[in-house]
Amino acid sequence: MIKVGIVGGTGYTGVELLRLLAAHPQVSLQVITSRADAGMPVSQMFPSLRGYVDLSFTHPDQAHLEDCDMVFFATPNGIAMKQVRQLLDAGAKVIDLAADFRLQDIAVWEKWYGMPHACPDLVAEAVYGLPEVNREKIRHARLVANPGCYPTAVQLGFIPLLEAGVIDPQAMIADAKSGVSGAGRKAEIATLFAETSDSFKAYGVAGHRHLPEIRQGLARALGKEVGLTFVPHLTPMIRGIHATLYGRMNSETDLQALFEQRYADEPFVDVMPAGSLPETRSVRGANHCRIAVYRPQGGDMVVVLSVIDNLVKGAAGQAVQNMNIMCGFPETTALNNLPLLP
Amino acid sequence: MIKVGIVGGTGYTGVELLRLLAAHPQVSLQVITSRADAGMPVSQMFPSLRGYVDLSFTHPDQAHLEDCDMVFFATPNGIAMKQVRQLLDAGAKVIDLAADFRLQDIAVWEKWYGMPHACPDLVAEAVYGLPEVNREKIRHARLVANPGCYPTAVQLGFIPLLEAGVIDPQAMIADAKSGVSGAGRKAEIATLFAETSDSFKAYGVAGHRHLPEIRQGLARALGKEVGLTFVPHLTPMIRGIHATLYGRMNSETDLQALFEQRYADEPFVDVMPAGSLPETRSVRGANHCRIAVYRPQGGDMVVVLSVIDNLVKGAAGQAVQNMNIMCGFPETTALNNLPLLP
Amino acid sequence: MIKVGIVGGTGYTGVELLRLLAAHPQVSLQVITSRADAGMPVSQMFPSLRGYVDLSFTHPDQAHLEDCDMVFFATPNGIAMKQVRQLLDAGAKVIDLAADFRLQDIAVWEKWYGMPHACPDLVAEAVYGLPEVNREKIRHARLVANPGCYPTAVQLGFIPLLEAGVIDPQAMIADAKSGVSGAGRKAEIATLFAETSDSFKAYGVAGHRHLPEIRQGLARALGKEVGLTFVPHLTPMIRGIHATLYGRMNSETDLQALFEQRYADEPFVDVMPAGSLPETRSVRGANHCRIAVYRPQGGDMVVVLSVIDNLVKGAAGQAVQNMNIMCGFPETTALNNLPLLP
Amino acid sequence: MIKVGIVGGTGYTGVELLRLLAAHPQVSLQVITSRADAGMPVSQMFPSLRGYVDLSFTHPDQAHLEDCDMVFFATPNGIAMKQVRQLLDAGAKVIDLAADFRLQDIAVWEKWYGMPHACPDLVAEAVYGLPEVNREKIRHARLVANPGCYPTAVQLGFIPLLEAGVIDPQAMIADAKSGVSGAGRKAEIATLFAETSDSFKAYGVAGHRHLPEIRQGLARALGKEVGLTFVPHLTPMIRGIHATLYGRMNSETDLQALFEQRYADEPFVDVMPAGSLPETRSVRGANHCRIAVYRPQGGDMVVVLSVIDNLVKGAAGQAVQNMNIMCGFPETTALNNLPLLP
Repeated sequence: MIKVGIVGGTGYTGVELLRLLAAHPQVSLQVITSRADAGMPVSQMFPSLRGYVDLSFTHPDQAHLEDCDMVFFATPNGIAMKQVRQLLDAGAKVIDLAADFRLQDIAVWEKWYGMPHACPDLVAEAVYGLPEVNREKIRHARLVANPGCYPTAVQLGFIPLLEAGVIDPQAMIADAKSGVSGAGRKAEIATLFAETSDSFKAYGVAGHRHLPEIRQGLARALGKEVGLTFVPHLTPMIRGIHATLYGRMNSETDLQALFEQRYADEPFVDVMPAGSLPETRSVRGANHCRIAVYRPQGGDMVVVLSVIDNLVKGAAGQAVQNMNIMCGFPETTALNNLPLLP
Repeated sequence: MIKVGIVGGTGYTGVELLRLLAAHPQVSLQVITSRADAGMPVSQMFPSLRGYVDLSFTHPDQAHLEDCDMVFFATPNGIAMKQVRQLLDAGAKVIDLAADFRLQDIAVWEKWYGMPHACPDLVAEAVYGLPEVNREKIRHARLVANPGCYPTAVQLGFIPLLEAGVIDPQAMIADAKSGVSGAGRKAEIATLFAETSDSFKAYGVAGHRHLPEIRQGLARALGKEVGLTFVPHLTPMIRGIHATLYGRMNSETDLQALFEQRYADEPFVDVMPAGSLPETRSVRGANHCRIAVYRPQGGDMVVVLSVIDNLVKGAAGQAVQNMNIMCGFPETTALNNLPLLP
Repeated sequence: MIKVGIVGGTGYTGVELLRLLAAHPQVSLQVITSRADAGMPVSQMFPSLRGYVDLSFTHPDQAHLEDCDMVFFATPNGIAMKQVRQLLDAGAKVIDLAADFRLQDIAVWEKWYGMPHACPDLVAEAVYGLPEVNREKIRHARLVANPGCYPTAVQLGFIPLLEAGVIDPQAMIADAKSGVSGAGRKAEIATLFAETSDSFKAYGVAGHRHLPEIRQGLARALGKEVGLTFVPHLTPMIRGIHATLYGRMNSETDLQALFEQRYADEPFVDVMPAGSLPETRSVRGANHCRIAVYRPQGGDMVVVLSVIDNLVKGAAGQAVQNMNIMCGFPETTALNNLPLLP
Repeated sequence: MIKVGIVGGTGYTGVELLRLLAAHPQVSLQVITSRADAGMPVSQMFPSLRGYVDLSFTHPDQAHLEDCDMVFFATPNGIAMKQVRQLLDAGAKVIDLAADFRLQDIAVWEKWYGMPHACPDLVAEAVYGLPEVNREKIRHARLVANPGCYPTAVQLGFIPLLEAGVIDPQAMIADAKSGVSGAGRKAEIATLFAETSDSFKAYGVAGHRHLPEIRQGLARALGKEVGLTFVPHLTPMIRGIHATLYGRMNSETDLQALFEQRYADEPFVDVMPAGSLPETRSVRGANHCRIAVYRPQGGDMVVVLSVIDNLVKGAAGQAVQNMNIMCGFPETTALNNLPLLP
């Protein structure tokens, strides 16, 4: 049994962490912080947790996070980097669900996130928490940078192709669609029901913060820089990401076998049978990524369909998966709940 | 470990039973039938079950249901009544999620369901499976009639008032709203996305099959006939029922205390604090019923708000709860998954 | 051709006014104000208006509203009452889409809206803009209080029953359901897509500002005070209100004929054939109110179903209808667009 | 005033034609056919038309379509081709909203539509009804093949690039997303609310009937064959198509100017300012196509965003536009209704 704290518990990744951790047999939830809502019972804000989570939100100044074995940051970007060092010094392990430790190139990070980085040395130490790529490093990490939602779906879809060297790495396209919860639980007009329901749009076409993160991960898989066009879209659903990936083949291979072999031992990546059409609802509430791979009309274009729940495999679930690996628990602990369909 | 069979597994209550039973530690799923889709792997129809359910659909004629300890009927009305006797004779227990055994008055049943009943004697034996009312009878039952979705939400909201005798039983109103999954997984124009999304309507105003079922349950609680107006509505969401109940008080009482005491020992009925506004999403995917009670402006009208997930507490979850009771398992087994919010 | 100004054009009633007025052959849109977005082209905020509305938002201080013949206030409550007098003095007519002039009892208004009223004398002059009740007064009014959305749907459904004196006026119930646009275009967590989609809830059960407005209107129809319970609900759709109304009959009458006669000459009230189930989408984008009336199982309970588009007949459309009446234009001018279905 | 008939009026394109034609000042709706629902008032099936359309459905055998000046086929594929000849012989003009006359290559048509073609000679005569390309031919046509929904959005987005010869025509990608109404008003499980809401998926990846139609149109613009990958997706909204188009530049040009010039005189194509993000709701219910063009990070990939309402510019609206051209009416007649937002 480990002591766990959550910093910033009033957003969607926070409540999702609570949903998963409340059912984790080796976790004792110690504290969850909120500056604005300190004192409010968590289950008053999120009645779905009534009977499962008895904590109230604690003001960050009273949180005593250093007494925890594991601390999750479910905060806006730029918060974790200011607090992680003292937690690590106190012996805690840390998983940051925000972007503070995702990009190894500090200059790139500072450009896309618009602020100076508070602890570049810890970025160097941090492990990028995509278990399908970094499982052994995660096992020994003190500090894990939990991947972004789009980057998870896109990387898992492209990596087998890049590792096998079968597509042109300079003309990759990721056309990705996200549910509205990806925009967070923030008071904004743009994500009101009446603004986003029954409509569809692209955004961030000129540039999105997940672009450098995806590029970094794909470059790691390939061993050199890649060329990627990334267009995210907002679709009127609560949860889910559907990434449609395009790559131009430059050598022959059995794509279905390639994907099946790459993920044969992965508990959360499901390579579906040829001809499948993964739906986001097939992973709703669950930590799975489902993938299908196509070569339409036998041409030289590969199309990969990759779906995740942005709040689970794209955030809180992957964080729990990382915690399980870091703490030596079975990797699927508390992540065995079945997807909710319909 | 008991052997379980499901008759009619291609509808929403069928797949929901599978979701819950696949995680039940004392259940071995033996067979699931479908006439039209015999031979198809269940997880091909419902990819959310990939990795969790390995069965294929079996044709009813090859199902050997009599070898099961427990058989669920997730079939249209009128199917179970033709097959239950031989299963009971073979020693199996049966839970019918359809309406065949819900109404004790055969004439009323035949009027509302438009067919002769095949086994009135078994209706007399059947226990109405609302644990909050009939727990002891369920414990000893061979045959349980699982309540309808609306009847569950409405009865749980009205019963404390009727048992306490504090409202006029001749002027009760149940204004209920259901998600579209309540209409079932059937090829029909009326429940297409483009017909039901972004719209709201009442239906069945002149008469709905759940009306006699609700009246029967309320009459049981009161000890005599009741007068009830029931208006169901279709609301553009997948899951969930919200029942707004109106009753006219005819004696003073502390309503909040009345409800809290009535359900103090119930694992799945949550009487929320005064002033709460239960949302259907707070029970999404879970077996809970959440209730709030009001007396607006201190007048003599009681307003009860009662929410359930129509596929869980309103169908498959309540069926598993009944199974747990009938089989001597802890009542909450496999029903502890937290609601999915957002 | 009249000169029209709109105060507060960045909300949903504002953009809906623009949609309707842009197609009005006798209206010249002169000015639309916004403090926060002054200078921005209206069609930049609302690209649906590209090619139809060339105005930019004007700062209120530069608006010269007194040069208009007609000014609409699509502002939060409490704004219009501070500006109306000088506009009336300058010879303009005014329609307030907010609540400042809806309640004749100033004390009641101040209690529910939590502020002192700035011009009680103008309240006395203001005409409540429900044409089906007040058409002649509207024709001669300088200042019209445009009804609220719920009050429009509820009053049109109850008025025939009260005028005919066929129901118990002390036990009326209005169970109303609104789309999320009714909450306005404001940055709030509670109306985010991920908070309101795929869920249903009641709100304002203990008391809602539309309750005194409805009571006032029903009392006017009856000639004395009424007893009403009003429970509003939020349903996951953009537009639409569905009011389900309950009344207890105290004398016999032909309900269908009663409603048909009451609204025989009304261009925007459609009494549907017996047995109809009005859907909110059947009035989407249009100024109609559709009504069906039931007496379930021949009992003494009347059930009226009344649907409107909350932004049209419940706000901007009714405002244009009032403008047409006040200005002597044919009442249906610019209100003849057909509902959008599906 | 022309006499107009509609064959097959119970689908979404049928009711949308009715919505638009009912407001057309030069159209007299004579007849609308339905085999299954002959005799039923149109406004009983579609209450949104109450007060606007007084017709009942006529059995095809009693329709006397040859008395019409213009006949629209809003039928499944394969119907129009059997009836068009006799209508043309009788002097009527015909617009087919299905696919019977869209592909000039009969062999290709027969392969994708799985049936022999009934009148190849009329295919040769038929004009493809995309006014932005074929306006003059449409003006003189007796028979117009109304384009598909995806083909309209995709062609309008790619054509300026192909005509200018600035992208590699062998590596084009169209990633398109459609609302569910695109699947038609048919009783099918796959498009039920509970199957498609709150989820997202691709379909037809291996091949979709609109692929050869798009290829034909793009080849016409380029003057030779093109290479195109087309992946359609289903998104949980009623109306709307969002096409995200990718092309690799092979010569420099000012993309914004290119698009603005190409469509400068088009009443229904709106090239938005640089940096715009077209939303499908910005064209809801209207005949517009809105386009934005990007070159992310200044690389060699062009990204075009193109949105239409699939039932208007993608079907019934474009059909009315074609009718206006064929009959010499102003092209925008009855197509000036503003988009419905929100």
